[in-house]
Amino acid sequence: MEILDGKATSTALKEEIKQEVEQIKATQGKIPHLVVILVGHDGGSETYVAAKVKACEYVGFKSTLIRYENDVTETTLLEKINELNNDNDIDGFIVQLPLPKHINEQKVIEAIDYRKDVDGFHPVNAGRLMLGLPAFIPATPMGIMTLLKRYNVDTDGKHCVVIGRSHIVGRPMSVLMSNKANPGNATVTLCHSHTPNLKEITLQADIIIAALGKPEFLKGDMVKDGVVIIDVGVTRLPSDKTKSGWKLYGDVAFDEVSPKSSYITPVPGGVGPMTIASLLQNTLLSAKNEIY
Amino acid sequence: MEILDGKATSTALKEEIKQEVEQIKATQGKIPHLVVILVGHDGGSETYVAAKVKACEYVGFKSTLIRYENDVTETTLLEKINELNNDNDIDGFIVQLPLPKHINEQKVIEAIDYRKDVDGFHPVNAGRLMLGLPAFIPATPMGIMTLLKRYNVDTDGKHCVVIGRSHIVGRPMSVLMSNKANPGNATVTLCHSHTPNLKEITLQADIIIAALGKPEFLKGDMVKDGVVIIDVGVTRLPSDKTKSGWKLYGDVAFDEVSPKSSYITPVPGGVGPMTIASLLQNTLLSAKNEIY
Repeated sequence: MEILDGKATSTALKEEIKQEVEQIKATQGKIPHLVVILVGHDGGSETYVAAKVKACEYVGFKSTLIRYENDVTETTLLEKINELNNDNDIDGFIVQLPLPKHINEQKVIEAIDYRKDVDGFHPVNAGRLMLGLPAFIPATPMGIMTLLKRYNVDTDGKHCVVIGRSHIVGRPMSVLMSNKANPGNATVTLCHSHTPNLKEITLQADIIIAALGKPEFLKGDMVKDGVVIIDVGVTRLPSDKTKSGWKLYGDVAFDEVSPKSSYITPVPGGVGPMTIASLLQNTLLSAKNEIY
Repeated sequence: MEILDGKATSTALKEEIKQEVEQIKATQGKIPHLVVILVGHDGGSETYVAAKVKACEYVGFKSTLIRYENDVTETTLLEKINELNNDNDIDGFIVQLPLPKHINEQKVIEAIDYRKDVDGFHPVNAGRLMLGLPAFIPATPMGIMTLLKRYNVDTDGKHCVVIGRSHIVGRPMSVLMSNKANPGNATVTLCHSHTPNLKEITLQADIIIAALGKPEFLKGDMVKDGVVIIDVGVTRLPSDKTKSGWKLYGDVAFDEVSPKSSYITPVPGGVGPMTIASLLQNTLLSAKNEIY
């Protein structure tokens, strides 16, 4: 069993990005610039956004945080997006989700110029991913693909079972794993809440991507020997065994499953750290005009 | 075993469209208008285009066929597309594929305003399909979904195996069958040329969508009793048993597979006739502004 170490890999990635930024700065006088729009004061969003801004600083990106209170109107937000779309200094920007209920999230996502949509949520990027064309790929699937690639995990002809069909993880993962590419070229089964015989299917899997958001859902008796496990779940539950009073749980019962696996991502320190590194990668790709 | 009769269903569909066109004409004075661009004189393309134009006439659509010779420049084609994009009288238009090699097909597809892309090939429509948003769905997957719906085939919680990952059939089918919808909500396995153990997988399938383009590939010993079979393949092979000297073959060995199936589409007369009806449906949806 080998740990797919997302912490170490994301650190290496960030070092590489940092060096590339220095080169771009030196040769072109340009600094990649990411803008983050944050509405309100949701605790989770505050944490994520702070981590994104910090990561930008670390690799030498310019970053701008634009804050609005919860009562911001949709019109104000859309006007700001239009302004950012037309600002040549900005390589990419994201609107931290969720948004307050009076704002139409889908409208906001579609207002973003897909060429600056480094979250990869715009239909053009989703469509291009599906068609195997260059696209901004959402951070979590992109991070998983990077992990598989860096650890040389063989996916070609393997049976990959994806649990969960969300637009930002399960669905794009199912497409990426079955596209003609490396990693990719896997036979992919996409399971979800309407799948009646999940265990029967996971027992056949060479690779399992668990992205359903149920703590320790995947048990040892649901996987075969040698399986590759990607655990996307992150649930925070109270605990009397930690100083902080809470503990993070993945979708995989690590203690039971890891002895049977060939590779496995831990929680924390697996997929999580890869997501912010992927956002940085997308911003760098945009600054270099490599997608569009 | 019940035949999923694409010929009868498409005839019924066309009758419904015809009636709706008469209503729209009477109440709004508008006639849905489809434009088809045909480059060169490929035999298959000539046949398809003629059938599309004929179907338009049948249901009362206005149709325009624009022809170019094989040596048309990409620029000329893109200029015409731009003109059609801006012509308010036109509800939808398609460029018949394949195009001559000196023309970039992807560039042509992306030049079409996605709101008039009734073939559903534009990345915006692919992305919206993937995100479960209203979109123009490519004709073949749309025709299959209509057949399943009209015959009340239960797909919820079923295991659907799609063979073939093409952008216009296999991939969108895999997404549609697993989206939260009816038909849909199936557990979907997408198989392709890199799948080593296809028979093992098809033997588990409640529904098989064969779209790989190999005549009579799916044999009787590859399916379980009660399976639903959708045969997308159409291969024309020489035959000494027909007057014309050739015969159409599907991807399914019908004589072996049909006795084990609960529902099955024949070739010809199954999926084929549904595709043109779906193109008409998309054009009507566009004329009624129901997608965009």
